[in-house]
Amino acid sequence: MGGYYIGIGRKARRVYGFDEMALVPGNKTIDPQDVDIGWHIGKLPFKIPIFAAAMDGVVDVNFAIEMGRLGGIAVLNLGGIQTRYENPHKVIEEIVHSSPKEAVEIMQKIYREPIKKELIKKRITQIKEANAPAVVSCIPQQAKEFAPIVQEAGADIFVVQATVATAKYLSSKREALDFKKLCEDTSIPVIAGNCVTYKSAYELMETGIDAILVGVGPGAACTTREVLGVGVPQVTATIDVAAARDDYLKHSGRYVSIITDGGMRTGGDICKALASGTDAVMIGSAFARAKEAPGKGYHWGMATSDENLPRGARVYVGTTGTLKEILYGPARLDDGSQNLTWAIKTSMSYCGVSSIKKMHEIEMVIAPTIKSEGKFFQEIQRAAKEK
Amino acid sequence: MGGYYIGIGRKARRVYGFDEMALVPGNKTIDPQDVDIGWHIGKLPFKIPIFAAAMDGVVDVNFAIEMGRLGGIAVLNLGGIQTRYENPHKVIEEIVHSSPKEAVEIMQKIYREPIKKELIKKRITQIKEANAPAVVSCIPQQAKEFAPIVQEAGADIFVVQATVATAKYLSSKREALDFKKLCEDTSIPVIAGNCVTYKSAYELMETGIDAILVGVGPGAACTTREVLGVGVPQVTATIDVAAARDDYLKHSGRYVSIITDGGMRTGGDICKALASGTDAVMIGSAFARAKEAPGKGYHWGMATSDENLPRGARVYVGTTGTLKEILYGPARLDDGSQNLTWAIKTSMSYCGVSSIKKMHEIEMVIAPTIKSEGKFFQEIQRAAKEK
Amino acid sequence: MGGYYIGIGRKARRVYGFDEMALVPGNKTIDPQDVDIGWHIGKLPFKIPIFAAAMDGVVDVNFAIEMGRLGGIAVLNLGGIQTRYENPHKVIEEIVHSSPKEAVEIMQKIYREPIKKELIKKRITQIKEANAPAVVSCIPQQAKEFAPIVQEAGADIFVVQATVATAKYLSSKREALDFKKLCEDTSIPVIAGNCVTYKSAYELMETGIDAILVGVGPGAACTTREVLGVGVPQVTATIDVAAARDDYLKHSGRYVSIITDGGMRTGGDICKALASGTDAVMIGSAFARAKEAPGKGYHWGMATSDENLPRGARVYVGTTGTLKEILYGPARLDDGSQNLTWAIKTSMSYCGVSSIKKMHEIEMVIAPTIKSEGKFFQEIQRAAKEK
Amino acid sequence: MGGYYIGIGRKARRVYGFDEMALVPGNKTIDPQDVDIGWHIGKLPFKIPIFAAAMDGVVDVNFAIEMGRLGGIAVLNLGGIQTRYENPHKVIEEIVHSSPKEAVEIMQKIYREPIKKELIKKRITQIKEANAPAVVSCIPQQAKEFAPIVQEAGADIFVVQATVATAKYLSSKREALDFKKLCEDTSIPVIAGNCVTYKSAYELMETGIDAILVGVGPGAACTTREVLGVGVPQVTATIDVAAARDDYLKHSGRYVSIITDGGMRTGGDICKALASGTDAVMIGSAFARAKEAPGKGYHWGMATSDENLPRGARVYVGTTGTLKEILYGPARLDDGSQNLTWAIKTSMSYCGVSSIKKMHEIEMVIAPTIKSEGKFFQEIQRAAKEK
Repeated sequence: MGGYYIGIGRKARRVYGFDEMALVPGNKTIDPQDVDIGWHIGKLPFKIPIFAAAMDGVVDVNFAIEMGRLGGIAVLNLGGIQTRYENPHKVIEEIVHSSPKEAVEIMQKIYREPIKKELIKKRITQIKEANAPAVVSCIPQQAKEFAPIVQEAGADIFVVQATVATAKYLSSKREALDFKKLCEDTSIPVIAGNCVTYKSAYELMETGIDAILVGVGPGAACTTREVLGVGVPQVTATIDVAAARDDYLKHSGRYVSIITDGGMRTGGDICKALASGTDAVMIGSAFARAKEAPGKGYHWGMATSDENLPRGARVYVGTTGTLKEILYGPARLDDGSQNLTWAIKTSMSYCGVSSIKKMHEIEMVIAPTIKSEGKFFQEIQRAAKEK
Repeated sequence: MGGYYIGIGRKARRVYGFDEMALVPGNKTIDPQDVDIGWHIGKLPFKIPIFAAAMDGVVDVNFAIEMGRLGGIAVLNLGGIQTRYENPHKVIEEIVHSSPKEAVEIMQKIYREPIKKELIKKRITQIKEANAPAVVSCIPQQAKEFAPIVQEAGADIFVVQATVATAKYLSSKREALDFKKLCEDTSIPVIAGNCVTYKSAYELMETGIDAILVGVGPGAACTTREVLGVGVPQVTATIDVAAARDDYLKHSGRYVSIITDGGMRTGGDICKALASGTDAVMIGSAFARAKEAPGKGYHWGMATSDENLPRGARVYVGTTGTLKEILYGPARLDDGSQNLTWAIKTSMSYCGVSSIKKMHEIEMVIAPTIKSEGKFFQEIQRAAKEK
Repeated sequence: MGGYYIGIGRKARRVYGFDEMALVPGNKTIDPQDVDIGWHIGKLPFKIPIFAAAMDGVVDVNFAIEMGRLGGIAVLNLGGIQTRYENPHKVIEEIVHSSPKEAVEIMQKIYREPIKKELIKKRITQIKEANAPAVVSCIPQQAKEFAPIVQEAGADIFVVQATVATAKYLSSKREALDFKKLCEDTSIPVIAGNCVTYKSAYELMETGIDAILVGVGPGAACTTREVLGVGVPQVTATIDVAAARDDYLKHSGRYVSIITDGGMRTGGDICKALASGTDAVMIGSAFARAKEAPGKGYHWGMATSDENLPRGARVYVGTTGTLKEILYGPARLDDGSQNLTWAIKTSMSYCGVSSIKKMHEIEMVIAPTIKSEGKFFQEIQRAAKEK
Repeated sequence: MGGYYIGIGRKARRVYGFDEMALVPGNKTIDPQDVDIGWHIGKLPFKIPIFAAAMDGVVDVNFAIEMGRLGGIAVLNLGGIQTRYENPHKVIEEIVHSSPKEAVEIMQKIYREPIKKELIKKRITQIKEANAPAVVSCIPQQAKEFAPIVQEAGADIFVVQATVATAKYLSSKREALDFKKLCEDTSIPVIAGNCVTYKSAYELMETGIDAILVGVGPGAACTTREVLGVGVPQVTATIDVAAARDDYLKHSGRYVSIITDGGMRTGGDICKALASGTDAVMIGSAFARAKEAPGKGYHWGMATSDENLPRGARVYVGTTGTLKEILYGPARLDDGSQNLTWAIKTSMSYCGVSSIKKMHEIEMVIAPTIKSEGKFFQEIQRAAKEK
C-alpha cells in the first residue's frame, strides 16, 4: 500500500482529493445519449446518481418535492429548522440576514429550540402528498426514537448520519445506537454514515445497512478538518470504501451502495467521485445555489450551529439558476455547476463508458493544477483589467 | 511506468504539465542563428512550428492571410462565426461588448445560426486569393459533409477536431465518422484530434491521418477539466503521443507529425512542448493578443457556446502587439508572449540543439516554481508599492 | 528512512508540517466525555496538555493566574518586559501603538532596558500568592544566574529556552551552560529546548531535564526559517523527538515528556501534534487572542527585538474571546481557535482513543489541502460578493 | 540518481530550489562569534562570501568602492550604462522615472548606445584610486577584446558571464570565445559562468578558470525560465556543480571556487546555498535595496534590455537601509534582508559548524512551506485588519 516516512519509524499514506486528480479519455468514445446514469439501493432504482444533502439552507419540503419530480433525491434534516419551527422560512430569514460576525451565535440560539415530533410527521406527510419520495435524516442519538415515527409517516428512506459513524460507539454515560437492531426493526432502506475507511465501512455494512455515506471533513460548509484535524480526502476515501463494498459483496452476496458526500462543487468533481467507485453523490453547495433552495443563496453545515464547537461557516454561494437547470440544463454558467447530469453523461462518453459500474474502472491520473506564480500574477492582473 | 497508490488496490500515474517542468541547458551552446525550426507534415514543409488555433476570436480571413504571409499557419473554424454570418465582424463586436454575466448566453444565441455552405467556400477562396495557405477545421459530425466542399474550394489542409477524438465512436442514433474512409477520400492532408493517450493516438494514426492534435483540457479558454473532470496535462500527453508516433513509424514506415494544442502561453511553454516530443504547437491566447485578431483582445473557446454545457469563459487577454511582433519580434514585453520564434531558437541554442528533432531528446527536470508564502506576501506588498 | 536525491550524491529527507497531514477516524468512536486529556511531567500531573508560551504579548502575571485557575500552564518570560519594567503595561501600550514600520526599532529600544532581579522575584511571588503555578523561563546564558532566584521565590517549573538548544555549546569567549549541573542543582522540574532532532533531544534528555520543547522555526510570530534558513516542520520534528523519548525511556527507565512548541493555530493542529507523539503543546498566537492577554490582540516573538538580527514580526491577531472560552468554550468562532480542550476530546473521540498515550498511535495521512486554482479564484470572487 | 516517469519511456529528475529546503540544526551549537565565513579564489582571500551582482541598478563606481571598503566584492558591468555613458546617473534617472509600460522600450533604447573603451578604463581607475578591488564583467563575445584593456587598467578580477556559458560554443558566423586561451592570456583571476550542470561546469573548469558562477533562470529580475523554459533551481544546480568542483579537485589538484548567482533574497537563502556546497554567493535584489545603489530602489537584469527578447522586468524593491546595515546590521527589518553576515554566522552556529567548508556538509531537509488555504485566507483577512 505504499506509504512515506514522515518521521523516524513512522509512515503515512499519501491520500488524494478531487483537485489533484483528472480522468483520462478513453480509446473509444460514446454518444452521451447512450450513457445510462441510473443506479439502485437494494432493489430501489434511481434515474440519476445525485442526492441533495440534509442541510437547512438546501432542503425544505418544497425543494424535496421539486427534486423528487426531477428524478433526484433530497434529504430532509429531521434535526434542523424544519422540525423545530412551525414556520421555518421566518427562521431562515433571520440566519440569512445576520451579519457574518453574529451568524454563528444566532444559529446556536436558533438550534436550541427543541425538535417537535408532530413536525417530523407533518413534513414527511407534506412531501408524500406531493407524490415525491420522502427521504429523511437524523443523528445516531435520535435514530432509535425517530425510526418508528418516520416509518409510520410513510418515509421512503431513513438516513442516520454523524460526522463519523462506526458500528462500535463506546460511552460510559449513554446507550449507543445498535445499527443492527435498527436495520432489523426498520422496513424501509437505511443509509448510514459518514465513514472514510475500509474497516469501519465494512463493519457498518455488516450491520445490515442498505447504503453508506462516504466523507469526513471535505465539505464546503464544514471546517471539521481545520477544527479537529480529522479528515480524509474524497478520492482515496471513496476508493477505500468501494473496496470494502466489493469485498463485502463477495463474502455476503449483498451489494451495499456507496454515496460520496461532500466536497464536490462541479460536474468534474462528481465524475471523479464516480471514477473512484461511488454509486452516487450527495451534494450541498451546488444545490444551495438553486432558486428553490430555502437558504436564498446562503449555505451552512449541520455542525455550524454546534453548541460547544461550531464547525463550518455560513457561506454565501449566490442563487444562479433553477433546480432543473442545475440538474438538466441548459447551463448558463461555464463553471461546472449547472446541467450536472449532462456533464456526467458527457464525461462518461469521453471516457468511453456507458454505465456507472464501468465508470468505476476508468483510468485516473494524478495531475495537480497548480500554476507557476508568474502566470498566477499575470492572471490576477488580467482579471483586474477585464471590463 | 511507475504509478502511486491512490487508494486500496488502485494506482494512478503522476502526470505533468508545463508549469512543473524546466529545460536543462546543454553542455555545448549554439548560435541561435544556426538553429533550424522547420518541420513538415508528410512532404509539406513548414518554416515555423506554430499554428494559430481555430478560434473565432483569433482567426478570421485577414488573420489567416497575414499568418500565411509570415510563414505560419492559421486554422479557420468552419463551425464558427465566419461561416454562419456574412458579416462576422458585427457579430464579434456583440460578443466583445457583452457583459461578463451575459456573455455565455449571448454566445449560445449567436452560435445557433446555421452554417452556410456558400460561406465555407467563400472564406477559403478569400484566403487562397491572397496566396496564403487555407487550413480549415470542423467537428467529426460535419467532416463527411464538408470534406468535398473544402477540397473543391482549394483548401490546403483539413482539420477534424473534437474535444476528444477516437478511431472508434459508438452511437445508437447516428453514424460515426469513418476516419479511414475520410482519409482515403481526401486528397489534401488531414489533421485529426484531440487525443492524449498512446493507444488512441496510435489507432488514429492507423486510420491514415497525416498529423494529430494533442491536448484535452489544458487551454486557457477552456474549462473541460473543471466541468467534466477530463484532461491530461500537456507534457505527459505529448510524451505519450510522441511514443505512439515513434512506434507507429517503426511499424508502418510513416511519420505522423504531432501538434500539441492548448495550454501554452509563453515561449517557454512552447519550448517545453518541443522538448516533450511535439513537432509543432497550436496556440490560441498568445495570438488573441495580436492587433490582427478579430476578437480585439477577447478570447473564447469552441466549447464556450455549447448549447447544453458551455465550457470555457470569454477571457480578456488584451491587445499587445502585431502578429509580426508576436512571431518575430522585436518583443516589447518581457513575459514571453512575443518574438516566439526567436525564443524557440534561443532556448534551443542554450540547450545545444540545432533542430526540432534533436530538441525532442534534451533533458527536462521536474522543477515546480512555487514560492514560500513569506515571499509570496512580500511580493504582493511590493507590487502594491510599485509606482 | 527514505530520502530523495536533491542533487548528485546528496539526499534529503522529506519532512512534514501540520498543514499537509490529516487524522484518520477510528473504527470505533468514543464519547468525548470519556476521553482523558491529562498528562504529567515526572510525577507532576496536569489536567490539560496546553501551555501558554513565554511571550510578552501573551503572558503576564494576571494571565498566568487565570491560566492556572483554569488548569493550564502559562510560562512567564524572565527575559522580557515583565522583569525589565516595574510597570509593564505602559511599555506594552507603546509597542501596541507603534506603526508597523517603526515596531521593530521601538521593540529593540524597549528590550535594551536591563533585567531586574527583584522583579523576577516579585512576579513569581505575585503568581504564587494567587495560588497559581509559577512557571518561568529564561535563555541558557542566564540560567545559571537565575536558577537560585527562581527557586527561592517559589517557582514550580524552570524553563530554559533558546532558538536551538543542545547539550554541547562551544564558545571561545564565554562559559557554556552545563545542563547536567543545572538539573542537579535545581530541585524543581527543568524544561529545556528547543530542539528538533533525535540526537540532540536524546543528549538533552541525558543531562537530566524533565521535559523537552520541540520546535525550531515554525511559529506564527517567528521568521527564523526565513532569516536563517533553519527549521524543521513540527510533525516530523515531534515524531523524531518522540522516538528519542521512547528510546531513552527504554534505556534509562525515565520518561521525559515532550512539548511541541510553535506553529499550532487551531485545535486541529494541536490534535496533529498529539498524534505525532507529543505529550503537550505550547501555544502563542491562539492565546494572544484572549481578552486576558496583555498584548491587546498583538503578538510578537522573543526574537522580534533581537538587537542584531530581529526575527519575527509583531502580528495583529485580534481579541476574540476570554481565556476560558479559548480553553473550554463555548466557541463563538468556527475557525478552530476556541474551546481547544473540547476540540481535542472530540477529535480523540472520532479517532477512537481515550488517552493521549493512545493518541500517539493513531493513523495520520498525507493530505495537502491545496485547491485547484479554478476554485481558488471562484472563492476569492465569492468572498468579494459576500454581503 | 532517482528520476520519475513523466511519460512513456521518459524520466526526469526532481530538482530543488531554496523555498522547498530547510537546514537542520546541529547536535552541537557554536558561538556565532567563533564562526569564520572567509573563503578564497585561488590564493586570493575574502572576508565575506558575498558578491554584488553586475547589474546597473546595483553597482556603480561609488557602490563598488563602498562594498570594497566593507570587505565584500561588487562586480561592475562593462556592458552596461557605466561604460556607455559619461554621466550614467542621468540615464538611470530616466529608467527609474519611466512608467512600467514604457520601461522595457526605454531600456532597449538606452542600451543601444555603444560601449566606450575609454569609459571601461576610467571606471576601473576610479575604483582603484579609492583603494577598492576592481572586479569587472563582460559577455563572452567581448571578452577577447576587453581583457587587455581591463588588465592594463589594473582590474583585480575579470568576470565573463552569459546566461548560459559552456566550454564549447558553435557558430557558423562568428568566432567562439576560447576560454582556455583567455585564461592563459590573462594574469588576473577569471570567473566564468553561468552554468548549472556537472558536465558543463567540469568542462569550464578544465579551461583554467579560477571560479565559476552557478545559476540559470532563478533571479528576481530575470524571466529566462518563463520566456525560454530554461533553468535549474539553485539548490540542485549548486550541489551538482559542487560535485564537479570536488571531482575536478581530485583529478587536477586545483580547487575552482563556485559562486551561486541569483535567486537569493534573504539570509536564509544564502545559508541554503552554502549548505548546498557553494563557496560564495552573488546577489542582486538585496543590494538594490541599499541607499548606495544607483537604481534608487529599482532593479533590473542584464537581459531586460535585450533588443530581440527582453527577459526580466524592472522590479521595484525599495530602499531599506545602508549597504553597511545590509551586510553588518543592525537589522531594522525582520524579513531576512539585512545583516546578512550575522545571519550566516548565526545560522552556521545553530547548525554547529564553524567554517564554510563544514557548512557544505550539514543536513538539509525537503520542507515546503505551503500553508493550507484555510489559513491562507485567514492570513489575508488578518492582514487587512492590521492597523
